[in-house]
Amino acid sequence: MRTIKDLQSLFNDALQEQQFKGTPTELYEPFTYILSLGGKRMRPVMLLHACEMFCGESIKALPQAIAIELFHNFTLIHDDIMDRAPLRRGLPAVHKKYNSTVAILVGDAMLLTAYKYLVKCDPQLVSPLINLFNDCGIKICEGQQLDMNFEKSNTLEIGDYLGMVELKTAYLFATALQMGAIIGGASESDASHLFNFGKYIGISFQIKDDWLDSFGTVERIGKQSGGDILRNKKTFLFIKALSISDDLTKGQLKSWFSGEQVNDEEKVSAILKIYSRLGIDEVSRSEMESNVAIALQHLSRVSLTESQKKSLAELAKDLLVRNE
Amino acid sequence: MRTIKDLQSLFNDALQEQQFKGTPTELYEPFTYILSLGGKRMRPVMLLHACEMFCGESIKALPQAIAIELFHNFTLIHDDIMDRAPLRRGLPAVHKKYNSTVAILVGDAMLLTAYKYLVKCDPQLVSPLINLFNDCGIKICEGQQLDMNFEKSNTLEIGDYLGMVELKTAYLFATALQMGAIIGGASESDASHLFNFGKYIGISFQIKDDWLDSFGTVERIGKQSGGDILRNKKTFLFIKALSISDDLTKGQLKSWFSGEQVNDEEKVSAILKIYSRLGIDEVSRSEMESNVAIALQHLSRVSLTESQKKSLAELAKDLLVRNE
Repeated sequence: MRTIKDLQSLFNDALQEQQFKGTPTELYEPFTYILSLGGKRMRPVMLLHACEMFCGESIKALPQAIAIELFHNFTLIHDDIMDRAPLRRGLPAVHKKYNSTVAILVGDAMLLTAYKYLVKCDPQLVSPLINLFNDCGIKICEGQQLDMNFEKSNTLEIGDYLGMVELKTAYLFATALQMGAIIGGASESDASHLFNFGKYIGISFQIKDDWLDSFGTVERIGKQSGGDILRNKKTFLFIKALSISDDLTKGQLKSWFSGEQVNDEEKVSAILKIYSRLGIDEVSRSEMESNVAIALQHLSRVSLTESQKKSLAELAKDLLVRNE
Repeated sequence: MRTIKDLQSLFNDALQEQQFKGTPTELYEPFTYILSLGGKRMRPVMLLHACEMFCGESIKALPQAIAIELFHNFTLIHDDIMDRAPLRRGLPAVHKKYNSTVAILVGDAMLLTAYKYLVKCDPQLVSPLINLFNDCGIKICEGQQLDMNFEKSNTLEIGDYLGMVELKTAYLFATALQMGAIIGGASESDASHLFNFGKYIGISFQIKDDWLDSFGTVERIGKQSGGDILRNKKTFLFIKALSISDDLTKGQLKSWFSGEQVNDEEKVSAILKIYSRLGIDEVSRSEMESNVAIALQHLSRVSLTESQKKSLAELAKDLLVRNE
């Protein structure tokens, strides 16, 4: 069986071969730009891997892997406009490199192109795959809207946050695995367990992303960013901190996150001190562990050998924070 | 056979029955808002009519008619952001009534929802319908990008304009008719002639839209707008005028359209005088007539009786300007 690394190369080679060219060039050049920014290609690779687990062959799922990656990039392009995010993977976001108008239209064209790849499969799989893909896409839109609503809300509970992350982030991991399993000929039950595996992995992935922003060391992420704190982002850490702190600390957290101009370093340092006092590091790790554990339970119920499931199990455990 | 008016009612009733509801409401309320703004529902009605022409029954094409209307409204929502258009059918555009962020996301969700309806059909039609719909969607994006490029170009030829209109406007008419024909069981040749009928009708429709802005009487369109002139829009009329005028008139046209602040009434009146001197009214009518004639040629080659084709022929002739 191919390793995750093999599948990354396979996918990147296949993506590179696609010609996203046409007229007008203003519409197609940004396709190449955003797709060349790279990334770990986690979603398409999970799709390919799921297919390979069941039929020993991942190549037949390549069009759908490309569809998932195009879909993911469509959401990145539009989200970056909505979130006014200037950078994507350290380089200008599409709406900054070009402009918002181009970015809206390129995102639209990329979503439509995703569907072109999606349907390149066994005719009897077209309907099931399209239905999964449509539902996933709509859930992600709902998640993005919830995320934007959260920025204005002062009464968030951790359950609201987890519900939003399930939609905005986890559903695409889950759907990628489910689609791969279906293309590989998995039973309905196995495909459903892989969906759930992906869902809990996705939730854990997002919590780790939130965690890294505050607790990632320079060695781990290249820099300590605190970017979420500076942008008053309502992360797992912030909402959890609010929910377990006394009134005085609540007041301090809300005051720092009220958006008034303050010294950046001072703000990050103050918030990290509060997080540390409240044990948010450990609480977050424990939440990641719970989600990974549920994911692994679902994986254990997939009717394949341990060796066939090994790569996914490792991928799940890689999401945990190791005490290095 | 149902009349166009019957089909409009049938479609509006079916659309009204759909529940575009869900959470978060911020995402779904704008669905109801834009769909309630009305319009003649030309595209879905043409789809239903094409289906009925071939199989005597249009109800089975209702999901695809809804898909086409959702798709059309998705393009309106995003185009209005890109074109900074404050109004849609006399009421605030979605990005004005809500905001641009909501409008981007609602458009995305509406496109995804369109696909949900599109696949509600005979399983063996899913692939052909999806492929037509995808291609059409991408062509429309290309047309919108060309239209935006044109606003910055000083060297447009009438062929560029017609190519853009074919993509941005005519393709959706053409695809709606082709899809309806396929659902109704038409032969490939008949479906293709209906596609071409729709294409030339669509081009004529856009030229008439351009023409009405300058030559529509108060009785015809409720008001004389000149809105395209005030927005320096590169319409059929303007590009044609540029292409047939001498250097002096060219200079005048370019100067009026240079975007400098001038008196509105004075500008509209000056441009209309130039159009009149150049015979642009007649040239435009003649272009509409040519396109309608080609459309009718394609209709004549569809293997149905004259009475079955009567409504479409009338619809085509209604696009011509009558000397009232």
